[in-house]
Amino acid sequence: MADEQGLTPRAQDFSAWYNEVVLRAELADYSPVRGCMVIRPYGYGIWENMQRALDGMFKATGHQNAYFPLFIPMSFLEREKEHVEGFAPEVAVVTHAGGKELEEPLVIRPTSETIIYAMFAKWVQSYRDLPLLINQWANVVRWELRTRLFLRTAEFLWQEGHTAHASEAEAEEETLRMLGVYREFMDDWMAMPPVLGRKTESEKFAGALRTYSCEALMQDNKALQAATSHNLGQNFARQFELKYQTVTGGEDYAWNTSWGASTRLVGGLVMTHGDDVGLVVPPQLAPIQVVIVPIYRSEEERTQTLGAADQVAAALRAQQVRVHVDARDTVKPGAKYFEWERKGVPLRLEIGPKDLERGQVMAVRRRELEGLARKEPLPMDAVATLVPQRLGEFQRALLEAARRRREENSYRGIESYDRFREIVEGPGGFIYAGWCGSAACEAKVKEETKATIRCLPFEEFRTPEAPTRCLVCGGEAKHEAVWDRAY
Amino acid sequence: MADEQGLTPRAQDFSAWYNEVVLRAELADYSPVRGCMVIRPYGYGIWENMQRALDGMFKATGHQNAYFPLFIPMSFLEREKEHVEGFAPEVAVVTHAGGKELEEPLVIRPTSETIIYAMFAKWVQSYRDLPLLINQWANVVRWELRTRLFLRTAEFLWQEGHTAHASEAEAEEETLRMLGVYREFMDDWMAMPPVLGRKTESEKFAGALRTYSCEALMQDNKALQAATSHNLGQNFARQFELKYQTVTGGEDYAWNTSWGASTRLVGGLVMTHGDDVGLVVPPQLAPIQVVIVPIYRSEEERTQTLGAADQVAAALRAQQVRVHVDARDTVKPGAKYFEWERKGVPLRLEIGPKDLERGQVMAVRRRELEGLARKEPLPMDAVATLVPQRLGEFQRALLEAARRRREENSYRGIESYDRFREIVEGPGGFIYAGWCGSAACEAKVKEETKATIRCLPFEEFRTPEAPTRCLVCGGEAKHEAVWDRAY
Repeated sequence: MADEQGLTPRAQDFSAWYNEVVLRAELADYSPVRGCMVIRPYGYGIWENMQRALDGMFKATGHQNAYFPLFIPMSFLEREKEHVEGFAPEVAVVTHAGGKELEEPLVIRPTSETIIYAMFAKWVQSYRDLPLLINQWANVVRWELRTRLFLRTAEFLWQEGHTAHASEAEAEEETLRMLGVYREFMDDWMAMPPVLGRKTESEKFAGALRTYSCEALMQDNKALQAATSHNLGQNFARQFELKYQTVTGGEDYAWNTSWGASTRLVGGLVMTHGDDVGLVVPPQLAPIQVVIVPIYRSEEERTQTLGAADQVAAALRAQQVRVHVDARDTVKPGAKYFEWERKGVPLRLEIGPKDLERGQVMAVRRRELEGLARKEPLPMDAVATLVPQRLGEFQRALLEAARRRREENSYRGIESYDRFREIVEGPGGFIYAGWCGSAACEAKVKEETKATIRCLPFEEFRTPEAPTRCLVCGGEAKHEAVWDRAY
Repeated sequence: MADEQGLTPRAQDFSAWYNEVVLRAELADYSPVRGCMVIRPYGYGIWENMQRALDGMFKATGHQNAYFPLFIPMSFLEREKEHVEGFAPEVAVVTHAGGKELEEPLVIRPTSETIIYAMFAKWVQSYRDLPLLINQWANVVRWELRTRLFLRTAEFLWQEGHTAHASEAEAEEETLRMLGVYREFMDDWMAMPPVLGRKTESEKFAGALRTYSCEALMQDNKALQAATSHNLGQNFARQFELKYQTVTGGEDYAWNTSWGASTRLVGGLVMTHGDDVGLVVPPQLAPIQVVIVPIYRSEEERTQTLGAADQVAAALRAQQVRVHVDARDTVKPGAKYFEWERKGVPLRLEIGPKDLERGQVMAVRRRELEGLARKEPLPMDAVATLVPQRLGEFQRALLEAARRRREENSYRGIESYDRFREIVEGPGGFIYAGWCGSAACEAKVKEETKATIRCLPFEEFRTPEAPTRCLVCGGEAKHEAVWDRAY
């Protein structure tokens, strides 16, 4: 894949475009192990920034990190009936270790509810030990047949929160609180505004009472389930004897929640902001927020522009800006622009001899966004103040653009199933329509169009005039649902 | 295990003491999976602080994080002959996944040289791509028969650095630089001063040209190999076709290094500083550096002392001190002292009505250390300045005490094998003695005494008067060696 080659345009083949962006921006690479990817430093740098932000939010809401075993005894997985049905088909199994066959095969965690609640049962005796609020950063394995870089890989990195509470109401509150944390993260850090709602029975987590999710709309108008939060009820507590003594001296099973987000978010970031030039990283998550490119012909010009570049970089670093000076002699400025645009650096500062004469640097935003000029000269002595402002503006404009795109590709008040199919099979998008609540209607749509109910949206996302009839059977609508094809 | 029970004294049974400290301080717990432990929030908090410190030092020396697959094809492991011989006996193997038997079994990484250098081969074309400086934070699995919490578990967490260079000299420099980073971390953060040196042929990493290590002396006078750094030569580069175009247009194999440290360090921390009361955490790594305990009888006293505690806590937080106010009503002050001492919090501040009258708080250090009073009243209005100072003093005193203990339990100039056995089988410690360089002498000592050559120490650690004769055969000494039994 030559550097000079352009990307496949999104409009021509979104899927090819996506893979090219991920590979050429050096976010990730294919590995020799089927279905497993390598996260390269630049992609891992974005993930580290995501981790840092989420971890801070988890701690601010009272959670602590811990670490549980990679291995789960097969018998543990089998205790919760729905859970094992959901996960057994895609687990990887260790049968031999230390040169011997194991007495009981060990499953590599596809998720850790079973092993974690088995430990909680050991630690929780009384209501005084509750709530127990734990998070784990870990790798998990789900053996998928069709894999995509970041979006669906056999192994992926994620965090999984696991909590235990003394009442169903408290567990429900926690489930929704953490969904809200994900939303805040997606809005403020990723500029990827999700629609929030509840999953249907057929789409909920295997073993949960209720699942809620954040659904984001990608540029190809397919949905990305970007994070989920589950109220597990007492399902796992019963199977793992996670009991506690109540305030009144009785005994009850604890109420659990779990919630997770993964490296899949990096894929969501690519598909939300990227363009035909390459990646676009929101400043809040960018490993490099500003790249400075000195422009020179003579040795003297080189000394001057590089000197100025280093000064500007130092001034920006003092403002907590993550900045890189591209001082390579072997690469021309134009090629540098191309490379950093492909890698999605939000802001480029060009410094040439003429800029120095005028006491300015030329700032170039990575992407044209409504209300923001793409190029703008900044007075040299105001760079340290203006650049953080420009980054903030760029971040907000990305969120605004993503929200506008999502709403422009949302269809409300759809009553005819023919029209629904036209949209699904045509442009795609979030389709809001009535649903009678029957699994049969849901299954029929999925079979005929591959679209699924992404969620039953929370009130703030619902259409003001609630649909009265089911899109599929014409019966009474119990819910408004958001349909779309999904990753 | 009742809270009120004392610990087994170290002098009576060090191993029992260690397990009790780890369990009662809630650093870790046994899991239902053989040989795998659970790292509880308090232990994970220490590990997070270790990670943050090391990660900062790796980045400051030019390294970037990345992530490689958990799985390694069996055939990869087999390519480097010494490497597979070293690791094959203890690998865990996935034979089935997604409901089917795999065509080629996958090994769960015991270390990632093979998969990482296979990827490097894809990324490196020319000398311009070198050096390539990568680090990975990950879990690894080595199926050990006899496991100990933190010290030896089937799964553990670690970081593994992997680099590629254009010359042997540069690789050697990197190998030693990273050993130096570990040393700095152990000195300045862990207060666990290691002896540095080279491993013998029989003790080096399977596949390395040379291995260097940091060896720390535990309180039972056994050695802990706390970190290793390997110059891998071109061994892996040859097997994975990791070639690059040289400056002169030729082609050569790259030179690799790898270096790692793990959650084992938490065990080292326990065995370096703990006492018969429980854990002692150096302030630099303590999740809680200061605990404040208000002392009151009446409701009025409660309001006053808790109010003062919160004020002091706020003033300390503003100074970046990690502080916790133990405001529990259901636990008496004495029981709180006991609990936080067991958990190793470096400094306790007691605030009672009389302290308030006197405008002071009573500061109590976790451990008596030479030159530092255990108890000391601090004027309330100077707490924010004095506490960070006291924490710094405590940190330095811990390092000083550990260094003194190490030297007091080091034996130099040992020439008689009988005397050597007396020490090994008696008090134990670092024994410095001459070695002829033969594997036979080394093996004989190991077989007869279970002591091994921990390292051939660097010059600054060597005895001024170099030994002339081999401890074992009496032949000419080629090296001074440090012997000890080890974890």
